[in-house]
Amino acid sequence: MDFDVVRRNLAGVIPITLTPFTEAGEIDEPAFERVIRRLVDGGITALTVNGNTSEFYTLSPAEGRRGVELTTRTVDPDVVVIVGVGLDVHTAIDTSHHAAELGAAAVMVHQPVHPYVSNEGWVEYHRVIAQDIPELAVIPYVRNAAIRARDFMSLADQCPNVLGVKYAVADVTRFATVSREVGERLVWIDGLAELVAPSYFAVGAVGFTSGLANVAPQFSLGMHAALRRGDYTGAMRLWDLIREFEDMRLVRSGADNVSVIKEALHQLGVCGPGVRAPSTQLSGDDRRRVTHILTTWGIDS
Amino acid sequence: MDFDVVRRNLAGVIPITLTPFTEAGEIDEPAFERVIRRLVDGGITALTVNGNTSEFYTLSPAEGRRGVELTTRTVDPDVVVIVGVGLDVHTAIDTSHHAAELGAAAVMVHQPVHPYVSNEGWVEYHRVIAQDIPELAVIPYVRNAAIRARDFMSLADQCPNVLGVKYAVADVTRFATVSREVGERLVWIDGLAELVAPSYFAVGAVGFTSGLANVAPQFSLGMHAALRRGDYTGAMRLWDLIREFEDMRLVRSGADNVSVIKEALHQLGVCGPGVRAPSTQLSGDDRRRVTHILTTWGIDS
Repeated sequence: MDFDVVRRNLAGVIPITLTPFTEAGEIDEPAFERVIRRLVDGGITALTVNGNTSEFYTLSPAEGRRGVELTTRTVDPDVVVIVGVGLDVHTAIDTSHHAAELGAAAVMVHQPVHPYVSNEGWVEYHRVIAQDIPELAVIPYVRNAAIRARDFMSLADQCPNVLGVKYAVADVTRFATVSREVGERLVWIDGLAELVAPSYFAVGAVGFTSGLANVAPQFSLGMHAALRRGDYTGAMRLWDLIREFEDMRLVRSGADNVSVIKEALHQLGVCGPGVRAPSTQLSGDDRRRVTHILTTWGIDS
Repeated sequence: MDFDVVRRNLAGVIPITLTPFTEAGEIDEPAFERVIRRLVDGGITALTVNGNTSEFYTLSPAEGRRGVELTTRTVDPDVVVIVGVGLDVHTAIDTSHHAAELGAAAVMVHQPVHPYVSNEGWVEYHRVIAQDIPELAVIPYVRNAAIRARDFMSLADQCPNVLGVKYAVADVTRFATVSREVGERLVWIDGLAELVAPSYFAVGAVGFTSGLANVAPQFSLGMHAALRRGDYTGAMRLWDLIREFEDMRLVRSGADNVSVIKEALHQLGVCGPGVRAPSTQLSGDDRRRVTHILTTWGIDS
């Protein structure tokens, strides 16, 4: 896909797609396709499969590949499919090539799992992957506040296919500093979703990733449209509307991050509520809170 | 291996073995075996392959398995070989069975990489792995302060092969609380190495993991012997001796954690200094600091 088209779509709402499971714990393929169709029918033009909300690290390598196949065969070719890749460099490159063969436009490189990260080593890790797949757009997923503007610039200088950054450090001053120093040569994506979006957009973000969009893409798209036109009052009205739902996903260090979304989609008849360990399904009280929120939102399908 | 023998050896020094690379970046097999032999010749009776200091997350799955093969064929059968496993449950189980076939005594289950962890889900993740390999000892590697005494007890109740815990939360009060509440039914291993060992032993640890032991097993074993007999003054003399080396490994969130050890072993002629991205080799200044430390220690082979 033309990189200008990819860039344009990164400046939008980028849902991280769910991976629904059957009661036996396997990938539920029809439900998987319903999740994807719900997103594109709702107006989504770019999405990420095999992100954290996809329970990526609970999937076997074969299951991860299957999710990409199910996604690319479900969407129209003009949808920007971004595939999460990571782990060791060999594995990241292999899964990137698989994604490219299936028609994905981009890979999101998960933060390196190896805990000992130098700035130069961070650049090198991404450089090796990006230069091996020059036809794919590459988006590093950054949760490490130590990565500096000069690191992003060094990577972008060496790899013209690094088009954007999913930035997920909960420090808006750090984000503002880094993104302003690098500037618009990279597309800056708020990787902490809707509740952070107004603050991040105020200082340089143009897109955000979303779990909520799996349930209510209209709210995510509405917030993005408001932020794009500088209507912070309108964005904050949506912020108020979604806050309780998003708060449920944040408590206990995000333990229920995916469980809340799956429970909502279960109540809407889209997929089962099952999540894999180390997460767990919601308790009865929390299930009733989700019911109440959906009622408040007036969403029943 | 008899679980009583395993337990006895967990109450000791448990080095995490290095993975040496050639200049071309492949596993250097002769150097790998030299690293292992150096440890057992130095008096080590239990060791972990494919831990973080082994650069586990930079290894392809095939390289990880090869490291286990090289280790088990190098050591005598009475050495307790612990194999790091992790990622999705399928992968963790497959690599555990591979380890068992090669004669490993135990697996250390890396902290789940999936970021959304509930307490019940944490127990479930380890239960599924441990119950699939009842003949192997299982040691969870815990870097998450949210895991409670009741979680450890629930896991141990369901899995008699969960023999110990590698606890690596930098909060000694939290460690004391958890380990005292659970008690000696689990072997409590300080997962933060020598600098933390005296404080952790004061409140319940009986073993510690070590990167330093790859370079100077006599210091690690000496500190452990001192702590075992309650000689904190003797332990702190060794603490003073190793502090600068260990500090070099801790700065910048551990960026040089492995690089410092590999540089030392390079200067001693054991293996090359190369580390994989996202880490990097030491700068010239830091290489000279390592030379100075080795001279101070009187170690030249």
